Amino acid sequence: MKIGFIQNAPLFGDKERNFEGVRTLVKGVRADLLVLPELFATGYTFTSKAETLELAEDQSGRTADFLKEISLQTGATLVGGFIEIDKERVYNSLLIVSGNTVIDTYRKLHLFNKEHLWFTPGDKPLKVYNINGVRIGVMICFDWIFPEVCRTLALQGLQVLAHPSNLVLPYCQYAMVTRCIENRIFAITANRIGQEKRGEDDFTFTGGSLICGPDGTILASAPLDEPFVSVVEINENQADNKMITAYNDVLKDRRPEFYR
Amino acid sequence: MKIGFIQNAPLFGDKERNFEGVRTLVKGVRADLLVLPELFATGYTFTSKAETLELAEDQSGRTADFLKEISLQTGATLVGGFIEIDKERVYNSLLIVSGNTVIDTYRKLHLFNKEHLWFTPGDKPLKVYNINGVRIGVMICFDWIFPEVCRTLALQGLQVLAHPSNLVLPYCQYAMVTRCIENRIFAITANRIGQEKRGEDDFTFTGGSLICGPDGTILASAPLDEPFVSVVEINENQADNKMITAYNDVLKDRRPEFYR
Repeated sequence: MKIGFIQNAPLFGDKERNFEGVRTLVKGVRADLLVLPELFATGYTFTSKAETLELAEDQSGRTADFLKEISLQTGATLVGGFIEIDKERVYNSLLIVSGNTVIDTYRKLHLFNKEHLWFTPGDKPLKVYNINGVRIGVMICFDWIFPEVCRTLALQGLQVLAHPSNLVLPYCQYAMVTRCIENRIFAITANRIGQEKRGEDDFTFTGGSLICGPDGTILASAPLDEPFVSVVEINENQADNKMITAYNDVLKDRRPEFYR
Repeated sequence: MKIGFIQNAPLFGDKERNFEGVRTLVKGVRADLLVLPELFATGYTFTSKAETLELAEDQSGRTADFLKEISLQTGATLVGGFIEIDKERVYNSLLIVSGNTVIDTYRKLHLFNKEHLWFTPGDKPLKVYNINGVRIGVMICFDWIFPEVCRTLALQGLQVLAHPSNLVLPYCQYAMVTRCIENRIFAITANRIGQEKRGEDDFTFTGGSLICGPDGTILASAPLDEPFVSVVEINENQADNKMITAYNDVLKDRRPEFYR
């Protein structure tokens, strides 16, 4: 299958302009799974809860429509971040879209920094989706620092992880290699680039989106400061081989009776 | 406090020669905690269970005596690997020795590769020891690939992890940075160097012992192919600060109700 990331440079608050930027990036791209950054259409650096409310949508909003458009155009399942509103609660979420269908949303379980001021923590289970025969899981940005997230998905049979991000710390791209090795999975981290100076905050997003394989090999990576698309062909079944030696299955060797 | 590793080059089966090598390396060293590799006195590449039995000791054997000698000489608590025999079972273990006292042994929970043929898997809990006011935990080599090990120790208040190793894969030194970041701990990985060609196996050990801090900074590292000692001064209390942002405590932010 062909998997890829779209590293974009959103302008805060201007969804239509950001959709147009993604349209330009994916021109001519064909793939099976494409991952966009966290909050790829809204920007990240909010200064009030009102701002998140203004940009929030439900599962049938403008961003879902846009992802359907790109899914139909590229042939890929799309995973991308958006602000989700549900019963007056606002979440830092992502949409999983295949063709004309919204498969599900995921709501970030581990909020980062001031996201605690704007968003409600996720309340939906970590789940693996069988999409066209491939077992796909999702997490958002800071979820990476909790090894339990990838592990929970791997124990459900995860083959390919889609990981929309807005990274400002330099650790994650490095750590995703560890996540892939310890679970023997593929992972696609789609990060954004650019600077957002709003309110008291001034964030520079670190780009460097990457695709990593079950043995820790980096299969694709993006520059730190340019919009970028990368698609690689993988054999997702490699993620089903958990044997790191002839005697070691990294999942079955776990000894949960000794873990907290 | 001062923490360090001793990266040695054992000769298979010759404990006295290997003790002498360590004596030479630690000449003049003063520290609070010193970590030696896994099986630092015996070598690693066994060809039969009989070989492990021949080199096995209990907690009051020759290796314990040697570690007491080095502990008294350097002022440090010593952590180093040995083959432990207990009720006819043989374990890939380590000793924790302070002055004239054996504090405990730990038995590798996750055996690597053919170790499954020679050793009984560990049967003792992952535990944090309060040694002179510092909360120290231990694991052995391949235990690193299971994030649950460091996590279990971190949830018990771990400040400094001692990690005797005999690494043949290149992943671990890289992954220890992730382990430190995700738990905000100090870690000392003491690896060996050299080649062991015995039976059907031919292992080259990858050196590169390292000390890493709670923010992922590498505080000391060793060459890949030379015996080496490194001691650094740390403030172990930095490991008590789990705040990665003003809003994020990497342990308290866990959401175990969503984890398997």
